[in-house]
Amino acid sequence: MKLLEPININGMKVPNRIMVPAMVTRLSGEDGFVTREISDRYVRYAQGEVGLIVVEAMAIHGSNAGPLLRISDDRFIPGLKEMTRKIHDASDSKVVPQIIHFLKIARSGWRQTVDMLTIEDIERIIEQFGEAAARAREAGFDGVELHNAHAYTLASFVSRVNARTDEYGGTALENRLRLIGRVMASVRRHVGNDFPVGIRYLSDEFIRGGYTVEDAKLIGLRMAQLGADYLSLSVGGKFEDAVHTPGHVLHGYSGYSGERCMPGASYPDALHVPYAAEIKAFINAKGFDVPVIAAGKLSDPDTVEAVLQAGKVDMVAIARGLLADPDWVKKVRLGQVDRIVKCDYCNVCKQLDGAHMPVNCFLWPKGAVQAPPDHGPVVAPSWPDGQAGLAMKLDGGTVALKWKKATGAVYYDVYRADDGGEARIVDGVKLPVFTDASVLGGVRYRYHVRACDANGNAGAPSESVQFDPAIPGRGTAAEAVARG
Amino acid sequence: MKLLEPININGMKVPNRIMVPAMVTRLSGEDGFVTREISDRYVRYAQGEVGLIVVEAMAIHGSNAGPLLRISDDRFIPGLKEMTRKIHDASDSKVVPQIIHFLKIARSGWRQTVDMLTIEDIERIIEQFGEAAARAREAGFDGVELHNAHAYTLASFVSRVNARTDEYGGTALENRLRLIGRVMASVRRHVGNDFPVGIRYLSDEFIRGGYTVEDAKLIGLRMAQLGADYLSLSVGGKFEDAVHTPGHVLHGYSGYSGERCMPGASYPDALHVPYAAEIKAFINAKGFDVPVIAAGKLSDPDTVEAVLQAGKVDMVAIARGLLADPDWVKKVRLGQVDRIVKCDYCNVCKQLDGAHMPVNCFLWPKGAVQAPPDHGPVVAPSWPDGQAGLAMKLDGGTVALKWKKATGAVYYDVYRADDGGEARIVDGVKLPVFTDASVLGGVRYRYHVRACDANGNAGAPSESVQFDPAIPGRGTAAEAVARG
Repeated sequence: MKLLEPININGMKVPNRIMVPAMVTRLSGEDGFVTREISDRYVRYAQGEVGLIVVEAMAIHGSNAGPLLRISDDRFIPGLKEMTRKIHDASDSKVVPQIIHFLKIARSGWRQTVDMLTIEDIERIIEQFGEAAARAREAGFDGVELHNAHAYTLASFVSRVNARTDEYGGTALENRLRLIGRVMASVRRHVGNDFPVGIRYLSDEFIRGGYTVEDAKLIGLRMAQLGADYLSLSVGGKFEDAVHTPGHVLHGYSGYSGERCMPGASYPDALHVPYAAEIKAFINAKGFDVPVIAAGKLSDPDTVEAVLQAGKVDMVAIARGLLADPDWVKKVRLGQVDRIVKCDYCNVCKQLDGAHMPVNCFLWPKGAVQAPPDHGPVVAPSWPDGQAGLAMKLDGGTVALKWKKATGAVYYDVYRADDGGEARIVDGVKLPVFTDASVLGGVRYRYHVRACDANGNAGAPSESVQFDPAIPGRGTAAEAVARG
Repeated sequence: MKLLEPININGMKVPNRIMVPAMVTRLSGEDGFVTREISDRYVRYAQGEVGLIVVEAMAIHGSNAGPLLRISDDRFIPGLKEMTRKIHDASDSKVVPQIIHFLKIARSGWRQTVDMLTIEDIERIIEQFGEAAARAREAGFDGVELHNAHAYTLASFVSRVNARTDEYGGTALENRLRLIGRVMASVRRHVGNDFPVGIRYLSDEFIRGGYTVEDAKLIGLRMAQLGADYLSLSVGGKFEDAVHTPGHVLHGYSGYSGERCMPGASYPDALHVPYAAEIKAFINAKGFDVPVIAAGKLSDPDTVEAVLQAGKVDMVAIARGLLADPDWVKKVRLGQVDRIVKCDYCNVCKQLDGAHMPVNCFLWPKGAVQAPPDHGPVVAPSWPDGQAGLAMKLDGGTVALKWKKATGAVYYDVYRADDGGEARIVDGVKLPVFTDASVLGGVRYRYHVRACDANGNAGAPSESVQFDPAIPGRGTAAEAVARG
């Protein structure tokens, strides 16, 4: 499989093509130091054989921002060093920190914007990025990733809505790119050319007046010209369209652009691959071969493999899918795809982040702070007397399913096949009930459920039920309910 | 060429694959009657041999909405009938009206939403759509198009943010589809099965909580099930994210979703074709062959032809490109692509609409209410003494060009070739100056300009100037300015 092939990123031997991109955990201490919980989170990805682990954004500057890692002072190095040692001890996964600068935000809704920064502020940021990258190298990381995405400082300079009027802003693309260019130079001065430096940035801002993939191609080219060692693409997640909840600081993922950044169940799979593929093709045509990484609803192994096989991108970043199951890569390697805890994009993780709570996965056992350790294929959950008793009730255009609790079940995957097609998971639920509001008269639906344990071991499929709804006002198709 | 092939839509013999979709003109009378100006606008498209002309949205209900056509009463039929006669006299173009229902909006920012409608209101809307369709047939139209898109009533029922809690709303897709289903049935009762009925709807709402192409596939399938004769896809243009200008009624194209609906110069060409193609493939797989029509930055003839040749969609809708040059189809047929007045997506037309002013094209001669009549290839504009005197000035990451006025010029197309590639139009300007803010160090640019008359007849290319900017902080490339 292409997804299991190694890739060399400026000397960093990444064992496969899967990256866990930076995800907020809210598991660090308020003081910004590494805690046991946060270290465990990243060691878990290494145990699962993820190729490249990006540790969540850590601040390069002094800040009071709650539970957020910091790399703004040498005193943070020992904790980070111990974490990287544990990660490296666990497997041959590589690990880089995402380093971030962000501006001030207030509970009132006020936020500092890039046009409020003085030239001295900018010079300080440039130096802080360099120093933070040097600390990352000292702390045993295999490289470093610059956070040039979403609502944060670097991305706000690159943005089309950068409101500065001097050489660091305005309408000229070169001015918008000036800060990231100087930051790259500063980082190289501090870490040298033999240390991998990746960049995360947006292929589309998804805000009014924002930039699209047209600018993103040029931004990527500039990153390649400046010697970036990988380009990791995201989208949206901006403050400009964030929805302010009175009394809370603005959450960059609460608006439409935030919805695109972490697209939920109503969005198609792999939806942002075309942008990353267009950027890769553009940069390759200009003679650069810097690896390009796509993200966005890419947790289905077949889909990931197809994207890589087609050469659309070089690596795939999986956030929510790897949060749900850090053993995703290992299970794919062992041919145990059926054992993967499959993300259903319910976005409870996103809600926890938005509520400033520790981020976990809805599909984990109740109260779990981490994904449970993998005990390998064991006895999967079973239905009482071998019968799930799957029953269906129809109510005004919705299908309500219920079934019996299975012994040893932590959650249930609900499968639906449309018009005799392939059965796909439409939801993952903890309680033995499910309602489907997205059924259309004239299409034939067949449902079944499978009970799964904490490690994703799926028990036998339930009986199936079929739903053959009529087209309202037509009555040509019979509303036939059959047991399969 | 595929784009010049006819297509039969339920007996309506459309002579080619190009549609002009409904575009507000603000040329009708305040009373909703057809005026000379509005009739001329649509006759002009027929003279240009556009396959299917969709006349701008006309209200099916009594309303006080300024200069907006109405089809809410039999007294509007004679005016409409005269217009369709003139259109049919001009060429074999086919013409349908887009019929619309919209809710109340106030200058205060308040707007009526679908959850405020009573069941009686809904029954009235259903009947009004049927009656309006019958009037369309009586007025000599070749078919009718239901407006089920953007911020208006039908689309607001289909929307995922429909806030009703009864059988016409809520989370169930079937409930959201109930009104459009009943409207279709009412229309068929009034016009019979042998009158083409098309539907315009959204492939993606592009708002927070809105639907995506996943729902759009099912909505399209339902339209096919109900016997829609074509599906014309748009995106966005919603009130939910509209930006309220105090003292003005809400404009549905003022937010991010409105930006996607009429994407400007910063967006890629043909950007929404993938959604329409996905919908077509889905519906075809279900056994329906209803024609699917894509829109969105599709005015380049090569791009349009490629989209049709690939079978992605059956027809292409061109709004701004046909506003700029209603003779687009005729010029393509005659092999006179060089004579097309090429839309540069400056969106002055969109701004005029937003300001509630008569909509014209920036590239037309000053003061023109309509695209000038086509006088055929005549003497194109010429440079004084055969020299354009193209000069370039560099200023902080931007390129400023200026050149001499050409004799007979109405506007100038500015061409740019990147790294020796194909020269493409980056802007169309009325004055002989242009500033380019999207240049990147490390890329070689070559510019030239061509002067065009009112009919798009382009004069000889100017001299070219080359710009070879360095990568800031690198200085490896020389900032060489050469005259070509």
